[in-house]
Amino acid sequence: MLNTRLKSWITVNDDSDFSIHNLPFGIYSDDTVAHRVCSAIGEYIIDLFELESFDLLNMNRSVFEEQYLNSFIELGKKETNRVREKLTELLTDENSVLKSNTDFFNKVFKKQKDVKMLMPVKVGDYTDFYSSIDHATNIGTMIRDPKNALMPNWKHLPVGYHGRASSICVSGHSFHRPKGQQKPPDSETPVFGATKSLDIELETAFIIGKKTEMGDSISTDNADDHIFGMVLFNDWSARDIQTWEYVPLGPFLAKNFASTISPWVVTLEALEPFRVKGYDQSPPLLPYLQYKGDKNLDIKLQVYLKPEGGKEEKVIESNYKYMYYTMEQQLAHHTVNGCNMNVGDMLASGTISGPLASEYGSFMELTWRGSKPIKLQDGTERKFINDNDTVILRGYCEQNGTRIGFGDCAATVLPAK
Amino acid sequence: MLNTRLKSWITVNDDSDFSIHNLPFGIYSDDTVAHRVCSAIGEYIIDLFELESFDLLNMNRSVFEEQYLNSFIELGKKETNRVREKLTELLTDENSVLKSNTDFFNKVFKKQKDVKMLMPVKVGDYTDFYSSIDHATNIGTMIRDPKNALMPNWKHLPVGYHGRASSICVSGHSFHRPKGQQKPPDSETPVFGATKSLDIELETAFIIGKKTEMGDSISTDNADDHIFGMVLFNDWSARDIQTWEYVPLGPFLAKNFASTISPWVVTLEALEPFRVKGYDQSPPLLPYLQYKGDKNLDIKLQVYLKPEGGKEEKVIESNYKYMYYTMEQQLAHHTVNGCNMNVGDMLASGTISGPLASEYGSFMELTWRGSKPIKLQDGTERKFINDNDTVILRGYCEQNGTRIGFGDCAATVLPAK
Repeated sequence: MLNTRLKSWITVNDDSDFSIHNLPFGIYSDDTVAHRVCSAIGEYIIDLFELESFDLLNMNRSVFEEQYLNSFIELGKKETNRVREKLTELLTDENSVLKSNTDFFNKVFKKQKDVKMLMPVKVGDYTDFYSSIDHATNIGTMIRDPKNALMPNWKHLPVGYHGRASSICVSGHSFHRPKGQQKPPDSETPVFGATKSLDIELETAFIIGKKTEMGDSISTDNADDHIFGMVLFNDWSARDIQTWEYVPLGPFLAKNFASTISPWVVTLEALEPFRVKGYDQSPPLLPYLQYKGDKNLDIKLQVYLKPEGGKEEKVIESNYKYMYYTMEQQLAHHTVNGCNMNVGDMLASGTISGPLASEYGSFMELTWRGSKPIKLQDGTERKFINDNDTVILRGYCEQNGTRIGFGDCAATVLPAK
Repeated sequence: MLNTRLKSWITVNDDSDFSIHNLPFGIYSDDTVAHRVCSAIGEYIIDLFELESFDLLNMNRSVFEEQYLNSFIELGKKETNRVREKLTELLTDENSVLKSNTDFFNKVFKKQKDVKMLMPVKVGDYTDFYSSIDHATNIGTMIRDPKNALMPNWKHLPVGYHGRASSICVSGHSFHRPKGQQKPPDSETPVFGATKSLDIELETAFIIGKKTEMGDSISTDNADDHIFGMVLFNDWSARDIQTWEYVPLGPFLAKNFASTISPWVVTLEALEPFRVKGYDQSPPLLPYLQYKGDKNLDIKLQVYLKPEGGKEEKVIESNYKYMYYTMEQQLAHHTVNGCNMNVGDMLASGTISGPLASEYGSFMELTWRGSKPIKLQDGTERKFINDNDTVILRGYCEQNGTRIGFGDCAATVLPAK
């Protein structure tokens, strides 16, 4: 449970993602600095390099001047948790030097609206899972057979596949509608052109915080030691390209043109108070996938769509708790064969759908392959995502009116080049 | 055609991979240096950092002291080709300072047997294609239907999928037999254990030499500007794990435990004299996949197996020229949707099989899923790879008795942990 008596001397609005309980990590830049490690509280970012000019954290501050969080994360949880604990102390102590020294305050704190958030980590390898049972059931029902919607392996292992790391971008990075081969049902041969069914996938991803060597496996018991934190993840997908290309080796060009993540890495420690019981998994899993305790998470997830020049409106509301497999199981599975992990590797959940139609985490499901378009407030319809639409993923945990969240995960689709 | 009159004052045996026409790039270490960029001729490696102490190449030699070739490659083909040309000049000039100055010679040249070759590049993203028609036909025949062995998309695009970069190792790196879920045909539920069908895949891979930004595409005409060179690639595969896990999103744990590459990157320029006409592609491809000129390559490929304590023997003999799609087509396809490429990205061919049974590039095909074991000289049989077997891939181009090759791509399978 959150210790909701903990209050910062910095004002934090009730609807802010950045309460004193969050203190996520990210990388920012502005007119004066190219890249700095920062945390966030309320409307502010906290420049950790400047903070450490006072030697409050008692560490080599050069790690806060790097382009990515990787070196900081590599220091280990003992160190990164110590930084969060020191921040908590400084931000709750009414007599803190940070509060009393105005010059110091002005150096360390900057308004979030005045800085640009950069890609938080250098991603080595990126994996995408397929671990929401409602999503897998919806897709299987649509493209195969409602009676055999889930493949025989689905309830025995968290199905996953490798994705492209190079095109993972931080929130705010627009991209052009991708082109590629499609084979329309009425065509004998494939055609080439811009995708006509650009979709989103509402996902989260976790970031590896501790490396392993080839041959090592991570147990479900030890997995949390290797998970630094989480981000929101939009796995943009071109459905017409995917349908034609994906047999027999999986999605490729339908996905690797762009993925968007939120800029703030929320630590697993910040998320701990929001643990909930996991999905009831039956048939029972092989021992290496079994786990103890409450390992699911209650994270409210939302998707907003903003047409060009229009207002944003909520189109999807889901929750991380609908996941069938936990992150701990995904990581145990990924490494059971000795596959090695590096700090900064990103493992995404797969589309997170809930049981209700309003909780479906992709337009493919929401509009049932385009057969039931959704109507927006401006009167237009959407089967999939239009040019110049902006899609914003949001996510947060809440207890007694206090939030911790990820910040916006937003990107605008530009017309095909 | 090779200019076979070109001779080095260093003795190069006829069966050496490292004639004056090759001059590949790699990274070595020994007792005195942690990592250095080097080239090779005959039995020697050429330490480019030491060579540049004489300022013969007129460049900042710090790039030769890095852990990987990436920074060197990033200098661009103009520079990297200039280095090869200067090396050619120094190694053919009988009056070269390299030859006349014994101290200098001893600093620059080291016997290959006395050094350890390291991973040549830091791989950002790794992609594996499936571009050999004989291989795809064999697999399709075995696991589906001989009459519809190729999926409908196969002759319209080079099917590919993303793989794991972290577990790509240089020749000489042993690994443990992977464990994982399998579902034997006679079992109701999956079982857990070491793979019983560990296979190899005889492949090559090319390395990206020039980056692109998201949204950019590379045409077949421009592809060669972006291809730095090639390596041999053994895409180790656990067939029982693969069969159970791969639907619907492709291979995952069956492949990401280990891949082995040869230590020397043979430049595309060295390979140019060995270009041959490409596969006759019918039906015709969409315009973005069409190309001009001879873009296939005549590279002899071999697989040797060495049982523990036994002698190595050749078990497969194939050729890169059997590829249906060229590297230029693979790269054009990979980027047609705007997927960005980084220097060091690795794109593998997929198993390269020829039409003859002796040319099948995997044991899955060679022993037809284990139904026709091969007999080794020591009297033992192999359906797949045994513990403590060493598998060595070799590859070379040859004209008029002069070779350029890749060096050994070898790894030993240790028992499961």
